[in-house]
Parts: sequence; C-alpha cells; structure tokens
Amino acid sequence: MKLQMIPMRVLGDERGSLVAVEANQDIPFPIARVYYIFGTLEGVERGFHAHKTLQQVAVAVRGSCTMVFDDGKERVELELDSPAKGVYIGTRIWHEMKNFTEDCVLLVFADQHYDEADYLRKYDEFLKFLETT
Amino acid sequence: MKLQMIPMRVLGDERGSLVAVEANQDIPFPIARVYYIFGTLEGVERGFHAHKTLQQVAVAVRGSCTMVFDDGKERVELELDSPAKGVYIGTRIWHEMKNFTEDCVLLVFADQHYDEADYLRKYDEFLKFLETT
Repeated sequence: MKLQMIPMRVLGDERGSLVAVEANQDIPFPIARVYYIFGTLEGVERGFHAHKTLQQVAVAVRGSCTMVFDDGKERVELELDSPAKGVYIGTRIWHEMKNFTEDCVLLVFADQHYDEADYLRKYDEFLKFLETT
Repeated sequence: MKLQMIPMRVLGDERGSLVAVEANQDIPFPIARVYYIFGTLEGVERGFHAHKTLQQVAVAVRGSCTMVFDDGKERVELELDSPAKGVYIGTRIWHEMKNFTEDCVLLVFADQHYDEADYLRKYDEFLKFLETT
C-alpha cells in the first residue's frame, strides 16, 4: 500500500512559521469538517474504523503520533511528527492512531459533514464491505 | 466593540479530547482556507492588517496568545488560551497577535482563498477604507 503524502507549505520567516492550506488545492477536496484531537492520555489508541466514502487529510500540528493504515491486505505505519507532513486517508482504509505524545495536536480535514452511517467500526464489517462493494 | 465568540464543542472521554467543527454550521461560513501559526519566536507580534471582505475564526489549539481587535474606534484585547475558545474575526477589523507562548499553535479558518488584494496592511489605509466604503 502506497501512502499519499500531502506536503504542507511552510511559510517561515524571522517571526516564526505559518502553514496555509487551500481547500480543493493543497487539500485535494472541499473542507466540510475539521477536527483536532488533543490531550490524549498516555497509552491511548484511537481510530479503529474505516469510512465508506469520507476522505481525510491528517497532520500533527504539534507533537507526534503514529498512524496505522490497513487496506485489508497490508498494514503500514507512519509517524506524523511535523506540522509540514500531511497524509491522505482515503476511503475504505482502516486506520488507527497510537503513541500520542502528551502535547500532540492531530488536525484532520474531512470532505463531508459528520455521518455515523459512513463509519465501519468493526474490522470484520470493514473486510466484508471491501469484498462486497 | 462586541467580540463574537465561537465556542467549540469538546467531545471528551476517557481517551482525551476532540473538537470538531462543521463548515457553515459551527463555523459560520464555508471553509476555503485553513492556516496555522506555530514556532513563533519570543516577543514577536504578528497580524497588523485588516481584510476588506475575508471572514475568519481563530482558536489557539495549543498554548496561548493575545489577539487585539481594532474597528477604527476602539481596541479590544482577547486571550486565546483554550482549544475550545474560538473567536470570529469579521471584515474591516484591524487585528494583531502577541504574547505567543513557545508552544502556541494558532489555527485559523477563512472563507476565501488567499488574495493579497483583500489585505489592508497600513493602518491609515485601513481607516481611510472604513471612511470611504
């Protein structure tokens, strides 16, 4: 499985750094929803679901965490450890997050509003969805 | 000048915290652009401009900073010091940011793509714009 990285343009100068992303350009879809995960307790793992149709881009804007991608055949791990390092989370990809540092802020852009019906929250249900759709 | 706060819904549980914002709902406009400011050096002040038409919402997702709002008649300061505390930055408001903590990550949602022509970067130009439009 080849991960699609979304490099973020860092506009740095003598004041500090700024990353700007334009919807439909840097982020390859319209931004309907944004969420950020923070204050994650030590040892916690999150995610453990896939989406039927939702596309997302994730970036650790502070601290770091590990993201696990699983397409039903292969598992790949990626360290999200830079405000400049985005990754595309496509549809039909089971994903998990772990190894959150205390200060980690994981920022995620999504192309649709929240819809519980789009989630596949059980791994066997995910595999069945891959087989049958 | 009355500031319009945008309270962010924090979905906290035994794992940690998550804030989700929906475009056109929690954020009162479509999200065309998102930027984040980080690694700001000690003593730096940023901003010092207004927008003719751009609307924004800002939130410090980590650390804190002070935002100054100026409508040409009055200056108001606000501490952005919580991932749950968003503030609306309307059109025609001169704004400045200062007192960034070392760990501050200031996240900003904007309703238009980047357009240099929308900026008023000189205070006297800003006042003249207020008078004449």
